[in-house]
Amino acid sequence: MNFKIPQEEYQNRIKNIQNILKEKDIDVMVAFGSEAEPQNLIYLSNYWPAFETGSVVIPKDGNPALVIGPETQTFAEDYSTIEKIFQVLEHRESSEPNYPDKKLSKYDEIFDFVLNGGKAKKIAISGLLIITLPVYKAIINSANSAEIINADDILIKLRMKKSENEINLLKQSSKITLKAFEEGIKNIKPGMEEVEVAGYVVGEMFKNKAENVAITPYILSGKRTNQAIGRASHKIISRNEPVQFSFGCRFGNYASSIGRPLCIGKMPGKYKELVKVGISTQENVISSLKAGVRAKDVFKKYWEFLNNKGYINYFLYGPCHGTGILECEHPFLESDSDYFLEEGMTFQVDIYLGDEEFGLRFEDGVLITSNGVDVFNNKYREVIEL
Amino acid sequence: MNFKIPQEEYQNRIKNIQNILKEKDIDVMVAFGSEAEPQNLIYLSNYWPAFETGSVVIPKDGNPALVIGPETQTFAEDYSTIEKIFQVLEHRESSEPNYPDKKLSKYDEIFDFVLNGGKAKKIAISGLLIITLPVYKAIINSANSAEIINADDILIKLRMKKSENEINLLKQSSKITLKAFEEGIKNIKPGMEEVEVAGYVVGEMFKNKAENVAITPYILSGKRTNQAIGRASHKIISRNEPVQFSFGCRFGNYASSIGRPLCIGKMPGKYKELVKVGISTQENVISSLKAGVRAKDVFKKYWEFLNNKGYINYFLYGPCHGTGILECEHPFLESDSDYFLEEGMTFQVDIYLGDEEFGLRFEDGVLITSNGVDVFNNKYREVIEL
Repeated sequence: MNFKIPQEEYQNRIKNIQNILKEKDIDVMVAFGSEAEPQNLIYLSNYWPAFETGSVVIPKDGNPALVIGPETQTFAEDYSTIEKIFQVLEHRESSEPNYPDKKLSKYDEIFDFVLNGGKAKKIAISGLLIITLPVYKAIINSANSAEIINADDILIKLRMKKSENEINLLKQSSKITLKAFEEGIKNIKPGMEEVEVAGYVVGEMFKNKAENVAITPYILSGKRTNQAIGRASHKIISRNEPVQFSFGCRFGNYASSIGRPLCIGKMPGKYKELVKVGISTQENVISSLKAGVRAKDVFKKYWEFLNNKGYINYFLYGPCHGTGILECEHPFLESDSDYFLEEGMTFQVDIYLGDEEFGLRFEDGVLITSNGVDVFNNKYREVIEL
Repeated sequence: MNFKIPQEEYQNRIKNIQNILKEKDIDVMVAFGSEAEPQNLIYLSNYWPAFETGSVVIPKDGNPALVIGPETQTFAEDYSTIEKIFQVLEHRESSEPNYPDKKLSKYDEIFDFVLNGGKAKKIAISGLLIITLPVYKAIINSANSAEIINADDILIKLRMKKSENEINLLKQSSKITLKAFEEGIKNIKPGMEEVEVAGYVVGEMFKNKAENVAITPYILSGKRTNQAIGRASHKIISRNEPVQFSFGCRFGNYASSIGRPLCIGKMPGKYKELVKVGISTQENVISSLKAGVRAKDVFKKYWEFLNNKGYINYFLYGPCHGTGILECEHPFLESDSDYFLEEGMTFQVDIYLGDEEFGLRFEDGVLITSNGVDVFNNKYREVIEL
């Protein structure tokens, strides 16, 4: 299995950004990322930090730089597609070592390097939603009197449409997640804690060469299935109660996930009805996706479908969200989503339905095509009674 | 295995904070946390967010509130030891759903609730190192003209010394990590990718009821062992080359980790020498830890020991760091660490030594006692040739 985006594609990503910077008359862009939110860094440099945070600094012309914390020089050198690396205190881990015995850089020096000694009039920051206050202040303090602008939209737009290499990795990632799902349903037994089932699932992901989980796995049972966002706990799983599997892996830096409700033994009747509604809802949403369609029209059909079925009180949020380096990334698909679907966009079709008693999620990745969608996994879209 | 800190201990933590707030004449404290940096939230409310971020808002008198994002109501209700929960847009996930169909709160309303309609003159924020800009702005915008101060020190100090319940969880967590280590050395074979070995390790953690990994596992081989911070990759492991295992789990919300270098077959001579230095260095550091000792004196002994051995060029950072809810938390132990060790503090004795060619880490958790330390794991502190 090939797990690498070629160096040339990384270089093109930087060039695409530089073209936009020139158009917008921006001198430098700083793209921030962390261990949990590494999307910008991975996209621009193949570097996924651990403990520390990082940034990629791109001038409108010339060479970019990768900025890391004080402990990760050899780690960053091993992964980074960007040659020049700076170490900055404010990107340190949250336990705040002082590193009194280490020489570190300031953003002044980094701006000086990427601008060849020139001065920036306009600096764009990408990742303002996730940037930490100390890093933000470190950038501002080195910006002199440059204007600071929000450049989140630049990276979000570039990342929304996936390349062939990215699509291949998303599909391979999906295959590993499906194997993990099958390992989970093979090993789940009444009397196990939810976390024990997660052990089979997560172990299988890494054994099939995933580099990480895409999300901490949800293995939810009983009433806990009504947690739209959740996590495996110490609850013991019983026979004949609802169980929700939702998890995914990251392979070649690209995320996948699957969501399926199931039951050891016989599903409670009311839950089985909900499962059937979940299946038909997911099928309905999948059939409404196609390049050229307006996103909010997909939402509207979803809403009407649920409403007609009498299940609108089980609604929590829109039926799709973007997927790629993060399992959940821009764009979300909601009632106010004005954008149009385009070929090359990838989504998780993510149907969560829940009430006070229980909930479920059917989730699979899809690629938007001119004819409709290419679904990454069509298996197990059924009532699963083990 | 008991995995729960009793509700009473959570209530005492809030009370301790309220006493400090009164002393310092602070009206409200806001403690921020995220999925990757959940320390403040877990400590104060047992809530560990997923995708979203959160905060705990504590008035100097009366009831606290938990603040979460728009998707996690039932999830938070299941875990939180704090009854009153608010949902705020700025705590949403980084894919930025708008939730046009959902009613959400502002921090105004939360301050109003915890202060019973009173006005704050002084608001303290804890977690300023990790807080995201949108949440910071949301708090500031609702602060009216209150003075904003940094309260990181309050929580850091309270969290440094561990209770009996916390120590028990740290020890249980260590036992699970040791089992995972043994599963790793049992299954590692030449020709495997590093990530495949991680599969055995991580799977075993969850099967033994860990709720998560403490860090994405480092399985590093060959030259990659010189990554002080690293992560399992697609590199294939060979016979007779250095391999570094560093990983840990989280159990009952408390983290553990182990670090050991090893080799399938015979260790290269120069590496074996480094391993022996690593062992004696870790033993030396462990023997210098005791309540009442000044932290920087531990560092000085460590530095001198390495220097006398002729290995000072393998130095990267101080030999210990705090451990608890996070695998690596305050305080770090460095050349400028002026604090004194106290009974009840817990550290990872973390000896990383590396140069351009290779590196290693010996790491184990310890509890500081009046006589010295209680080491959570003493096994495998030896030359490991499989």
